[in-house]
Amino acid sequence: MDRSVKVFAPATVANVVCGYDVLGFAVDQPGDEVIMRIKDEPGVVITKISGDEGRLPYHPAKNTVSVSVQHYLDHIGRPEVGVEIELFKKMPIGSGLGSSSASTVAGLFAINTLMGNPLTQMELVPFAMKGEEMACGTGHADNVAPALLGGFVLIRSYEPLDIIRLPYPEELYCSIVFPHVDVPTRDARKIIRSNVSLKDAVVQWGNVAGLVSGLFLKDIDLISRSMKDVIVEPVRSILIPDFYKLREIAMDNGALSFGISGSGPSVFTFTRNADDAQIINEKLKKHFLWLDTESISYHSPINSKGPIILD
Amino acid sequence: MDRSVKVFAPATVANVVCGYDVLGFAVDQPGDEVIMRIKDEPGVVITKISGDEGRLPYHPAKNTVSVSVQHYLDHIGRPEVGVEIELFKKMPIGSGLGSSSASTVAGLFAINTLMGNPLTQMELVPFAMKGEEMACGTGHADNVAPALLGGFVLIRSYEPLDIIRLPYPEELYCSIVFPHVDVPTRDARKIIRSNVSLKDAVVQWGNVAGLVSGLFLKDIDLISRSMKDVIVEPVRSILIPDFYKLREIAMDNGALSFGISGSGPSVFTFTRNADDAQIINEKLKKHFLWLDTESISYHSPINSKGPIILD
Repeated sequence: MDRSVKVFAPATVANVVCGYDVLGFAVDQPGDEVIMRIKDEPGVVITKISGDEGRLPYHPAKNTVSVSVQHYLDHIGRPEVGVEIELFKKMPIGSGLGSSSASTVAGLFAINTLMGNPLTQMELVPFAMKGEEMACGTGHADNVAPALLGGFVLIRSYEPLDIIRLPYPEELYCSIVFPHVDVPTRDARKIIRSNVSLKDAVVQWGNVAGLVSGLFLKDIDLISRSMKDVIVEPVRSILIPDFYKLREIAMDNGALSFGISGSGPSVFTFTRNADDAQIINEKLKKHFLWLDTESISYHSPINSKGPIILD
Repeated sequence: MDRSVKVFAPATVANVVCGYDVLGFAVDQPGDEVIMRIKDEPGVVITKISGDEGRLPYHPAKNTVSVSVQHYLDHIGRPEVGVEIELFKKMPIGSGLGSSSASTVAGLFAINTLMGNPLTQMELVPFAMKGEEMACGTGHADNVAPALLGGFVLIRSYEPLDIIRLPYPEELYCSIVFPHVDVPTRDARKIIRSNVSLKDAVVQWGNVAGLVSGLFLKDIDLISRSMKDVIVEPVRSILIPDFYKLREIAMDNGALSFGISGSGPSVFTFTRNADDAQIINEKLKKHFLWLDTESISYHSPINSKGPIILD
């Protein structure tokens, strides 16, 4: 059995416009890396964190990676195993791109690999959710499930947990822009109304059903016209400067959709190819600059593999 | 061109448990029949209605069939065409099985046939919705669309109208029991709350997405576990005597799902075969009898064709 492994796990876009709390997908870029080494004495320790600007805790009971790895070791009956973790944050924290999920999933995939893969990737989901619970206050699966499984994922139900892998058109391309404005997930959840009109809810589940149908049918046009959010976006968009102007810019430049990634502030679009995604990223970044807001952009196909072993 | 035609159009189950206002499917039995004859002078007239126990109006401006046929003739620029309509109600009125839709769709399919099919069946949907508007107070498409198109149908959006045909597992069988209790559609709509909790709405759209996924994947088990309604059923079920006991009887006898058809009072189940459907129908009818309530039952595969020409 190997004594050490290096793993990459992808960033993810949760909600996917109309699928609040039930849909998510993974992208090839960005993502996080973890190096994990078996050590001789028990205990999960974090020996290095880079790229986090000092924001993440080293304390094993406070870091989502060590918490979920320890939880995993206890579950498989190997609490005596000790590991050292090096975490390389290669994506921004608080971006709405599933930053904590990427780290947690990289850690869980690493430990499962070192233990000889006793659990499937699907079976790792609940352990990653434990990490989310600590990071975001609620144990959601719409980032960790696509990060672990790759591709497009439906969380049909939480009790019991029921995760469905959805197909998608291969040409679908994703552009992401992360503006440097602060939107903590906890606060972004708080501003959402706890009641909605039945009329809006019907519009929303018509669109969710339309998006899922479009993914199965690989019907780009149906995907595009289904990606509307009448429930969450009208509220959360106020946290993103000039949101509707940004949408106009994206749609005018060939975007199939435009929306908030997770709880924001990152925004994402679907396009038909890499060129469109790149052009949209440039135009959106330019508009953010005009608003005196720095931003980082990514473009990527939908990630089909989930976490991978790098070394 | 033929001077007369006889058409059958199928009953339909709208809502389909979790898909309030967006999902519907057609069944082979029951359904309505229409005989339509071209006459020499203009005007749409109804010359005969049977099987309605005198409940449907003969006045051409008040009957959903003549209203939608006239609307169709005006639209295709043939207002001078006159027709005589005989309507054979072969299914109960006010049953929650799309009774008015079946008649309207039979009439529209008949007139379109007599005119040489200038419109597709999809293009007939808005004309049938005009009839629904008169019959139910709102121009819904979740009965008329599956009655016209056959099979399983998603109404993704009403503005603009966007209808998606969904695949389904061929072995899926439907049992229906119509108890003789009165639940007019208008009243059944009224008792539904106009606001719902976001939490319930998320559960519902997870299930809608799960059901649509199950239909595409032909995954009977996923279909079964997705067919839960936390929004409408808890309210509407109070109009159906002993609803939860009926569910228990159905599920104990192999039903994949149990729910209200449209606005009720009919209830329907999915099963894996005709035998299960028949047994469930018998047990449910027996329970209704024990409640001093007469009932009628049907069992049928999902109808794949929509309306058909009989003569």
